[in-house]
Amino acid sequence: MSRLSEFELIETLFAPLATAPGAFGLRDDAAIIPPRAGCDLVVTADTIVEGIDFLAADPPDSIAKKALRVNLSDLAAKGAEPFGYVLNLSLPHDFSQARIEQFARGLRDDQERYGIGLLGGDTGTISGPWSIAVTAFGHVPAGEIVRRAGAGKGDLVFVSGTIGDSAGGLALLKGGASDMKAEFENFLIDRYRLPDPPVRFAQRLRKLANAAVDISDGLMADLGHVAKASAVHIAVEASRIPFSPALKSLWGEGPDAIVRAATAGDDYQIAFTAPSGNEAAILKAARDNDVVVTAVGRVEAGDGVSLLDDNGREIPVPRPGYRHF
Amino acid sequence: MSRLSEFELIETLFAPLATAPGAFGLRDDAAIIPPRAGCDLVVTADTIVEGIDFLAADPPDSIAKKALRVNLSDLAAKGAEPFGYVLNLSLPHDFSQARIEQFARGLRDDQERYGIGLLGGDTGTISGPWSIAVTAFGHVPAGEIVRRAGAGKGDLVFVSGTIGDSAGGLALLKGGASDMKAEFENFLIDRYRLPDPPVRFAQRLRKLANAAVDISDGLMADLGHVAKASAVHIAVEASRIPFSPALKSLWGEGPDAIVRAATAGDDYQIAFTAPSGNEAAILKAARDNDVVVTAVGRVEAGDGVSLLDDNGREIPVPRPGYRHF
Repeated sequence: MSRLSEFELIETLFAPLATAPGAFGLRDDAAIIPPRAGCDLVVTADTIVEGIDFLAADPPDSIAKKALRVNLSDLAAKGAEPFGYVLNLSLPHDFSQARIEQFARGLRDDQERYGIGLLGGDTGTISGPWSIAVTAFGHVPAGEIVRRAGAGKGDLVFVSGTIGDSAGGLALLKGGASDMKAEFENFLIDRYRLPDPPVRFAQRLRKLANAAVDISDGLMADLGHVAKASAVHIAVEASRIPFSPALKSLWGEGPDAIVRAATAGDDYQIAFTAPSGNEAAILKAARDNDVVVTAVGRVEAGDGVSLLDDNGREIPVPRPGYRHF
Repeated sequence: MSRLSEFELIETLFAPLATAPGAFGLRDDAAIIPPRAGCDLVVTADTIVEGIDFLAADPPDSIAKKALRVNLSDLAAKGAEPFGYVLNLSLPHDFSQARIEQFARGLRDDQERYGIGLLGGDTGTISGPWSIAVTAFGHVPAGEIVRRAGAGKGDLVFVSGTIGDSAGGLALLKGGASDMKAEFENFLIDRYRLPDPPVRFAQRLRKLANAAVDISDGLMADLGHVAKASAVHIAVEASRIPFSPALKSLWGEGPDAIVRAATAGDDYQIAFTAPSGNEAAILKAARDNDVVVTAVGRVEAGDGVSLLDDNGREIPVPRPGYRHF
């Protein structure tokens, strides 16, 4: 099968994704993001790279979705409503036409799912693996962005979803066959390939949360970012961290498993702090959006983050999160 | 010399570049771009990759500047005033601390030169060469963006600067020693490493030009984009295309040299069309900004682009511009 040229590929696969009027169908040097009255524009960027953030054997449509969702997760953590994105795509010289088509289908599906459109970008080749840099945009009512700074002493600390599933999925993909139930195995692998950030729920947090962060480096590391930005201490109760039945089946529920899951990263859920008086409203907002939210700790005077056992003793966390280098 | 970790590197080298209040010193998941009253936000993105857009031996500060300027060139072509940028940086596993520091200095210098600030991004490693994806932002008064579409029959076609210098520089860098004057050689190599888009001049084109494009793929290919978007034919007179004395010294002035220069790309100058009645104002705006502007052709009914010799005969152009694949 012959392969499309750069311009044919953009015209055939990507231009149909440029649905916003300001994207000019990708037929210009740049796009326009018109101002939305009363709103600030929120911008974030995250790159995913083959061999690090996804595996060569992952289906290309799920790679596309992961590239978008790791960014939608950042927007969600800020309470922003997603609007659009720019795509910088670097392909290995021998990329296949079929894979790029499947990749574009993944983008299209998630554009519909999240109500976003492609605004621009570029496509080139690299002497290396697939690399997908996305810059994503969302809107928040002016001044209502949820910051990492803002956690107040006495706040409760919440997380959405379950923690560690993606790391479990990656361990399965790297480790080969397991003796787990196929259903559990598929669930964990799916969580690695396809993050599910709570995009709609998170917009309710603008009025309810004091601080928020997306869990990408690892729960403990990301709460560390909140603690530092807010100049507070965050105490997490290990036994409250929500784990899926599948992950419990893979790693058990001992302290080692908890530390591993809470420091692995790649969760793309939201951790946030809020006054205890907001707990009922938060749980209602979560139910309204089919999201599970769990209180896992509290904000105190001090600095840093600690993980506590049921007796209030600190569990050592040698490495709170993932680092690229 | 020990190397900084990912977070130390961001805090030490990149956070000081996040000068806009909405960048939160890179200490959050996202940045805010507040609306500018009466303006549209213009967004563009371009990636440069080692071995394709720059060479491993290029000084890291000039690599940083090239990464910014290829994007500022797109903003200039739209008449936008640059505001800020997001940086997705992929480094090889063995990148050196000294090179990344020099890279950050290059960013800082160009931030001052162009009045822009870093808004966010991410830094990771890749099993491959340096890859730098930039998404850049600028403002235009609402509705005043200069499009590729808009060229009108009877318009004159102009280019800023000189054409082909960057391609000449790359040829010198790849071909080894030449017998040219060192001054010419340095000029051409410098034009390859360090584009000089006419950022201030181009903002004057909002009121003067009907259509514009930045010359990145190659003059003939990029005018082809304008012709297609505007549904017109563009005729370029080969003998009017401006070449530097250095490039003439390298390649001569024959038809082959003209075709080579006008299809090589990487110029990061602006090609634009305007009614002939605006020519005097355009030349004044160019003088005001120390930019050289040359009329090279005209817009006619029809489609496509042609390159004409002094007798009005068409010079064949087998390949109008650069393609990544």
